[in-house]
Amino acid sequence: MTGRDSGTGRVRLRLLAEGRPPREVTVPPGVSVFEAASWNGVAIDSTCGGHGTCRKCKVRVAAPGAGGGNDGSAPDRADGTGGAGCPVPVSRLDPRAFTPEQLREGWRLACLARAVSDLEVEIPALSTRPKAATVGVGRQVILRPAVQKRYVELAEPSLSDQTPDLERLLAALDDLEPVPDLHAVRAAGKTMRAADFKVTAVVVDDVLIDVEPGDTSGSRYGVAFDLGTTTVVATLLDLSSGTPVAVRSMLNLQQPYGADVISRISATMLDPSALDRLRDAARETLDQLAREVCKEGDVSPGHVYEVALAGNATMVHLVLGVDPEPLGVAPFVMATRALPALLASDLGLRFHPRARAVVLPAPGAYVGGDIVAGVLASGMDRDRRLRLFIDVGTNCEIVLGDADRLLATAAPAGPAFEGAQIRCGMRASAGAIETVRLTPSVELGVIGDVAPAGLCGSGLVDAVAELLRVGLLDRSGRFVPDEEAVRLAPELAGRLAAVGGERVFTLAGDVFLSQRDVRELQFAKAAIATGWRLLLAEHGAAEDEIQQVLLAGSFGSYLSPASAVRIGLVPRLALPRIVSAGNVAGEGAKLALLSVQERAGALALLEEIHYVELSDRPDFNDRFVDLLAF
Amino acid sequence: MTGRDSGTGRVRLRLLAEGRPPREVTVPPGVSVFEAASWNGVAIDSTCGGHGTCRKCKVRVAAPGAGGGNDGSAPDRADGTGGAGCPVPVSRLDPRAFTPEQLREGWRLACLARAVSDLEVEIPALSTRPKAATVGVGRQVILRPAVQKRYVELAEPSLSDQTPDLERLLAALDDLEPVPDLHAVRAAGKTMRAADFKVTAVVVDDVLIDVEPGDTSGSRYGVAFDLGTTTVVATLLDLSSGTPVAVRSMLNLQQPYGADVISRISATMLDPSALDRLRDAARETLDQLAREVCKEGDVSPGHVYEVALAGNATMVHLVLGVDPEPLGVAPFVMATRALPALLASDLGLRFHPRARAVVLPAPGAYVGGDIVAGVLASGMDRDRRLRLFIDVGTNCEIVLGDADRLLATAAPAGPAFEGAQIRCGMRASAGAIETVRLTPSVELGVIGDVAPAGLCGSGLVDAVAELLRVGLLDRSGRFVPDEEAVRLAPELAGRLAAVGGERVFTLAGDVFLSQRDVRELQFAKAAIATGWRLLLAEHGAAEDEIQQVLLAGSFGSYLSPASAVRIGLVPRLALPRIVSAGNVAGEGAKLALLSVQERAGALALLEEIHYVELSDRPDFNDRFVDLLAF
Repeated sequence: MTGRDSGTGRVRLRLLAEGRPPREVTVPPGVSVFEAASWNGVAIDSTCGGHGTCRKCKVRVAAPGAGGGNDGSAPDRADGTGGAGCPVPVSRLDPRAFTPEQLREGWRLACLARAVSDLEVEIPALSTRPKAATVGVGRQVILRPAVQKRYVELAEPSLSDQTPDLERLLAALDDLEPVPDLHAVRAAGKTMRAADFKVTAVVVDDVLIDVEPGDTSGSRYGVAFDLGTTTVVATLLDLSSGTPVAVRSMLNLQQPYGADVISRISATMLDPSALDRLRDAARETLDQLAREVCKEGDVSPGHVYEVALAGNATMVHLVLGVDPEPLGVAPFVMATRALPALLASDLGLRFHPRARAVVLPAPGAYVGGDIVAGVLASGMDRDRRLRLFIDVGTNCEIVLGDADRLLATAAPAGPAFEGAQIRCGMRASAGAIETVRLTPSVELGVIGDVAPAGLCGSGLVDAVAELLRVGLLDRSGRFVPDEEAVRLAPELAGRLAAVGGERVFTLAGDVFLSQRDVRELQFAKAAIATGWRLLLAEHGAAEDEIQQVLLAGSFGSYLSPASAVRIGLVPRLALPRIVSAGNVAGEGAKLALLSVQERAGALALLEEIHYVELSDRPDFNDRFVDLLAF
Repeated sequence: MTGRDSGTGRVRLRLLAEGRPPREVTVPPGVSVFEAASWNGVAIDSTCGGHGTCRKCKVRVAAPGAGGGNDGSAPDRADGTGGAGCPVPVSRLDPRAFTPEQLREGWRLACLARAVSDLEVEIPALSTRPKAATVGVGRQVILRPAVQKRYVELAEPSLSDQTPDLERLLAALDDLEPVPDLHAVRAAGKTMRAADFKVTAVVVDDVLIDVEPGDTSGSRYGVAFDLGTTTVVATLLDLSSGTPVAVRSMLNLQQPYGADVISRISATMLDPSALDRLRDAARETLDQLAREVCKEGDVSPGHVYEVALAGNATMVHLVLGVDPEPLGVAPFVMATRALPALLASDLGLRFHPRARAVVLPAPGAYVGGDIVAGVLASGMDRDRRLRLFIDVGTNCEIVLGDADRLLATAAPAGPAFEGAQIRCGMRASAGAIETVRLTPSVELGVIGDVAPAGLCGSGLVDAVAELLRVGLLDRSGRFVPDEEAVRLAPELAGRLAAVGGERVFTLAGDVFLSQRDVRELQFAKAAIATGWRLLLAEHGAAEDEIQQVLLAGSFGSYLSPASAVRIGLVPRLALPRIVSAGNVAGEGAKLALLSVQERAGALALLEEIHYVELSDRPDFNDRFVDLLAF
């Protein structure tokens, strides 16, 4: 028996691709060799995308060290797991692709060869160069969308060839074996006869969803949605090239029901009709964006055959009309982690009537599909470096780990970063102060080049960090007495004042930072810092072993790394190692559309991400109090 | 390599069930050992119905002659098809059910063991006695409906057990591994909490379609439909016991569009809106019957989770809204032979919102799912006897064969049997003469004990047969001259008369049989006799090798075997060998509901039934003319 990678529960694959240096990767046991290679950017020939139908993904596998020189002289195995010491059993389709001699030599179809032990995989040179796209945090992804089209010219039926219409069509698809749905059954005969038996088969995953007249194989689109609590983003993708055609965003129309997930869940608990209304509001948001991106990209909605959606668990429950109450009250239970195959119409979308929908799975009630998408887009599950992923927001999700182990948790940071509960707080829109520098004069960056109207999250963090640096705030988070202020920062001391009996620091005109604002930020940063420190302890790693911090989400993208370090929100790393990851949830949704292997990777993350619940940990409060100070 | 049953393309299984005599059966290659045994009435333990999840269907397989005494000393096989000479490869789930030692001894899960060569199968005694029902032509069927229910009492979630609702439920189903659909995702959380976590999972095939509060496992129903061109029959079945709860029939509401399939296809070709109206008429018929059987059986429509439908290809196309035009014009092409998984709502039915629908597959445009159902219900595909199945009607379907080979064709008999084109013809309803005996007085059987109003199909055949017997009709089908009539049958000769210049035989009052009527029947019987004679020729068998004739359909059920033999409609067998098979289409639909193995058997029939097209055969017309005489 060949060994598993002990401890981590992963198996190690040595990929020997012709003409490329050997590459060693680790993957969860049970994934196919094809997926393992694809996830790691190593291409294997395939046109069916890993369904076992095109029979092109031929590889030769052996136990590590056995090498490729297996000559069949090794003792045979009698337990049915394959002959000649090849640790991968012969699958039901392998005998259709290989001779018995080749099977003995370890040749297998990579898409059906499951890696349950360490392997060496010999990968022949590609006969075609696969298309790839750069998505997420610099990830190079081989294009294998679930949406496939095949143009075929069929022989017309005759009395000596009465093959039914759909079987005639399916027989002409030599690398795909889809099952037609009722829509395709209805379309086939009419379309084939109207189009002179020259038609395009539209396949999504393993379903034939339509038959289109003539050659429409160039029109293959999908839409990736990032369904955020605040903002919703839609990206229209050309699935043939992997390029974005149009991007649009808007505020989630659920806003009137509350700014955060808890207030929206509460709304459904107070009013039985609110669930339907919240569902409809989310659907309207998606539908409006859908129409906008199609218009902008000049793409017919009927040529959009698949959508992918990333959102937190509450957003996903609401848009599907699933009661979110169990998410909102202890013990915080989801309906399901992974959703079944859905239609885009189940999300209220009006694309092709049989367009499919993929919803990214969620490992926990407060570590949702948006985080899975982010981990996927940043490649945390296949990177050797220990990395820390923080999605800063009202509910702050934190993931720590590397290719061998991933830990996640959620920290209740409160609404400070959204500008709520902050005296002069506002959302990051025109007039919001987003950067603050005390040089010692006050230099403000204001969104939209207008007069400052308030302070958004990144401005808040900057302001506190700068006041700490110049000494006007002490480490406990208190404004220093006036006389000390004059001594430490004579140019700025005059800005300290009292508003309604509370000490404040005036930033511009009537925009100020109050003592209570500082306290709010302290609570938020303590919650987040407690979160990642507990994950570090759980992982058995020290702060200085972290090699990169990824700041995700729209807020994280604008946060100044220097300020984040100064207030203790993130570990003290060299600033270039603190990276804004951008809208990784949307990028993850794009990945799911562009590659069925990436989609499988998202599902595998459910098993790989270990969720750490903070609310029942006895050491949470002690750590939290310790971390209140800056 | 172990041999296939050469010539027939089938493989031979010797079933050695503990405590029962050995049984040899032949099946198409590739079916599972589990299905092969089930089809032949041999029970193997199982609770999941053959999905590979309950791991109870343990059998030991060997090549013929190798016996069960395989001790592992035989040379190992290096081609991956399993060790120690066992001709069935180890499946992905076998290692979960057996030790390596047992695998070496040939133990396999029967539901995953595909029979591709002749086998000996050792079947352990059953741990539970399977329920069975008698369906069709005396077939004993082991109950394994696709609809399954499991009552479970679940632990409530807690902070230390945040398992999502659906995963909690699925983990409690130890013998099933269904995938939840969106309806179940929506239902699970609410129902589990409202019902104190005591719920019933509703599974159809491999989909979890609902979660019901409390224990509803006793309420499991299905409806079998025989969607005939003329008459539609619905049977409500209790799937727990296999017993029919209620049966109803009515005329197909498509009647106004024509009596036969060709006139209905023509209607859709003349008027673009007719397809929708025909679809709706069929759906209304099904829906009305559905409501009637539920009312009669006092069963809530929400407890009907699956329906099965058997109909000819045209009826199936129409009820699904699939354009039937290619069926109606040469070269007579179907949209598809087998339909994808459907919902009952796709047929317009209002049962459980996620109730599924199975439509029996059709081998050809004029040998439809009703005939597949009939072959299934009469067990033609597993009987050693050479049998002839005739479904008499406007389009007459004929199947000839045995377990090794099945041939089918369709003969255009015309509307004589429906009473159309017959001067005093009528449908088999009150007032129709259905039997005729000339003793030499005229003895008539009339439906409904009322005065004779006309002649239905069986009465027509009887009348002609009797007139032939007494000599008033000669073998060419002509009424003999009056003087000869007086000589041959003095008591009856007076009934010969002329109506509108045509010779007729008066049966009663103004009901008569005309010379042209006899000609119509001659054409019909010649078409049918040509059909089965050509199948006999194709099969290489002689008429006297046929061991049984099955007369199917509502018309066939009433036909007198003696008369059918006399006019040459069926081969000359001893009368007890000519059997009325009843409504076998409906019986086949019931089988599909009661057993997933029988359903798989119906699909296998697509490959087994070889369709013989008559319309392009050069010898058809010669034979037809030869067979016009009685």
